[in-house]
Amino acid sequence: MTADGSAGARPDLVAEEDADTAGPSFAFATLATRPGGATLTSAVEDTPVDRVTEAVRRLGDALLRTDRADPSLPGFADVLEAIADRIEAGASPVQQRLVDMWAGEGVTRHDPVTGAENVIAPPLVLRGEPDGTVRGEVTLTIPYQGPPGCVHGGVSAMLLDHTLGVANAWAGKDGMTAQLNTRYHRPTPLFEELEVWGRQERTEGRKIWTVGEIRARGEVCVSVEGLFIAKKLARPR
Amino acid sequence: MTADGSAGARPDLVAEEDADTAGPSFAFATLATRPGGATLTSAVEDTPVDRVTEAVRRLGDALLRTDRADPSLPGFADVLEAIADRIEAGASPVQQRLVDMWAGEGVTRHDPVTGAENVIAPPLVLRGEPDGTVRGEVTLTIPYQGPPGCVHGGVSAMLLDHTLGVANAWAGKDGMTAQLNTRYHRPTPLFEELEVWGRQERTEGRKIWTVGEIRARGEVCVSVEGLFIAKKLARPR
Repeated sequence: MTADGSAGARPDLVAEEDADTAGPSFAFATLATRPGGATLTSAVEDTPVDRVTEAVRRLGDALLRTDRADPSLPGFADVLEAIADRIEAGASPVQQRLVDMWAGEGVTRHDPVTGAENVIAPPLVLRGEPDGTVRGEVTLTIPYQGPPGCVHGGVSAMLLDHTLGVANAWAGKDGMTAQLNTRYHRPTPLFEELEVWGRQERTEGRKIWTVGEIRARGEVCVSVEGLFIAKKLARPR
Repeated sequence: MTADGSAGARPDLVAEEDADTAGPSFAFATLATRPGGATLTSAVEDTPVDRVTEAVRRLGDALLRTDRADPSLPGFADVLEAIADRIEAGASPVQQRLVDMWAGEGVTRHDPVTGAENVIAPPLVLRGEPDGTVRGEVTLTIPYQGPPGCVHGGVSAMLLDHTLGVANAWAGKDGMTAQLNTRYHRPTPLFEELEVWGRQERTEGRKIWTVGEIRARGEVCVSVEGLFIAKKLARPR
């Protein structure tokens, strides 16, 4: 990990913005502003940063299958460290980057589930449907493994938490996760297309209830019920 | 993502091994076999594969802060793609890799939370204590962001699901997650040391109840209750 986890980069955790007065959700389209079928998350694009990110994703996947005795590895490490040095040297300081990020597109290109520029994200691409459902398909490989040949239960929870958040934005009222109850019905396979969906069920004042599932071959693997609170942390300034 | 998500790589999801007869847990120490204070997960080592993985982690972090107009990026993409090609060309086919992995160290060096060889993993290092608690500290950066300056709720759920699984192994009876109820008490900060712990509370037949928390500055940010079932999927053969 880099040394840029500097103290002071964290925004004030006490200050909150009221979701009703904080202006439009960061870069999220909603049912009210976009027609059904809209892609709500950022797709991988033909840009240099997306090319680099995709290559790094491939590296991460291949490393879990590599021969550890491959005599090329030390040389690769040298090259990769040199590139990391170069990119880090030209990168914004964390605090400035957070200010820029949240003044612009927010986390949508950078989050760990749908962020095209985040090597951790598969990335999952979600579409909004006219009935309020958000939906996407994803195929996961060895980096996301828990039980043999299956998706890690925590990865499933992560995908669903994020999908519920996007469903809330799509419905026009979103906030922060307060509670996430995840049930595992059957193992979720790697190497197969998974269907992921979420939908806001109801709201009451600041409370938001949202549900979702991960399915494989039409069968429910994981289901989730989330309670969200319609408030937002202050954007870094 | 690579094209190696080939059909047929998935083990038979129906076959199960009884946890009571499946032999020792894959590469996990338990309270019965190790003294308290034992490191239960794999630390980053001074090996070529760990060096490459660590460099790739640094790249992933720096990419989220890079200037997208940096004229060096296309050249870096070329180099990274060439290295990915080389590592992929020498890597084991997925099915063979799964067989080897689960015949050996299991997922412990490869899982998305504690796996030193997995670029998705921070990685979290967990220690086992004599009272059955497992515990570790981790500081997360921008790749793990959800709300501004804070850890993604799904990332917290992922860390805790895994920590509870390791706590079960440490207690000597583990299995698969059936239910995970996660509560978010306050925002979990990035760039600060987080304390993560889990402990098995009780078992009844095949059912296992396990709890855990993520704390920052001594305060509970996220708490979790998990129900696990003591069964295992068959190892790929």
